[in-house]
Amino acid sequence: MTTMSSFEDADTEEKLTCFQLTVYHPNQDNNNVFQGLRFFNRERLSSMEVVNFGRSSNLCHYTLQDKQVSRVQFSLQPFKQFNNSVLSFEIKNLSKKTSLLVDNMELGYLNKMDLPGRCIVRFGEYQFLMEKEDGESLEYFETRFVLAPRSLLEERHYGMPVPENGFYSSTLPTEMDENEY
Amino acid sequence: MTTMSSFEDADTEEKLTCFQLTVYHPNQDNNNVFQGLRFFNRERLSSMEVVNFGRSSNLCHYTLQDKQVSRVQFSLQPFKQFNNSVLSFEIKNLSKKTSLLVDNMELGYLNKMDLPGRCIVRFGEYQFLMEKEDGESLEYFETRFVLAPRSLLEERHYGMPVPENGFYSSTLPTEMDENEY
Repeated sequence: MTTMSSFEDADTEEKLTCFQLTVYHPNQDNNNVFQGLRFFNRERLSSMEVVNFGRSSNLCHYTLQDKQVSRVQFSLQPFKQFNNSVLSFEIKNLSKKTSLLVDNMELGYLNKMDLPGRCIVRFGEYQFLMEKEDGESLEYFETRFVLAPRSLLEERHYGMPVPENGFYSSTLPTEMDENEY
Repeated sequence: MTTMSSFEDADTEEKLTCFQLTVYHPNQDNNNVFQGLRFFNRERLSSMEVVNFGRSSNLCHYTLQDKQVSRVQFSLQPFKQFNNSVLSFEIKNLSKKTSLLVDNMELGYLNKMDLPGRCIVRFGEYQFLMEKEDGESLEYFETRFVLAPRSLLEERHYGMPVPENGFYSSTLPTEMDENEY
């Protein structure tokens, strides 16, 4: 068989659900805490997988180079809701030391929840904007990492193009008040 | 240090949550579908783990020796409910071919649910009675497998001691009507 006929006979490619993670840490420019991540690269993963994030490269698919991060900080896993034909994702906090905040919901050790299509996940000084773009395939999905130029908690700026000088003219990032939780 | 003082200094042992699985398959006596399981043995597992059940020994912690079983049939994983201090378990169907019935709830491919403390899980001709006995530890739990002498769907008999002759005097096991689902 020629290359052309195997191309013609191959299964029709399905669009994959893309799980995009826009990440931010206040020291990301000095200490390269995100050096374990490949930015803008799309990675295809099986829906059988449970994807761990944390410090240990033995236990985690995506690593954070930071001693303040737990060996396994949290896990993400795809599933299918009963009333929905596309992939959804569940998050579980696997850190005994640090709470995980999903928007305003606090998850302790081993607490889990289904993620909304767009949310901000935080632990320690880390901020992850998690956004799901629905695809057709149930068997595979892909991840994509983006580095945020500044804190994601400046909601009104996030999603706007970065000005040419790379610097927003407005005030400093406003941290959310811890007392809210 | 002597053995005695290391015994005295060791962390206080916490009682582990025991997840007991009583299993049944109509051909369990002829084809040894359960030869991958060690009955009555308690196995300690970390709460970090996702425990897969299926045909593939590469992908699964507990294997079923049966070509009708998917390479990964389902996964079990511990978690902690927000309002509860003990471990709970979630089940997810990872088989594209076979539905998983948790009591009367049907789970398709990638559907998941939180397990009640006692339930019957079925797929194909397999029946698993899953029972949780609460412990104190969150970090570890244990599993224990028991082989059922007869179908678990005979609810009124299950849990009764086996008569001395090893044979119940009543009628044959009554299969549940498929139309109920």
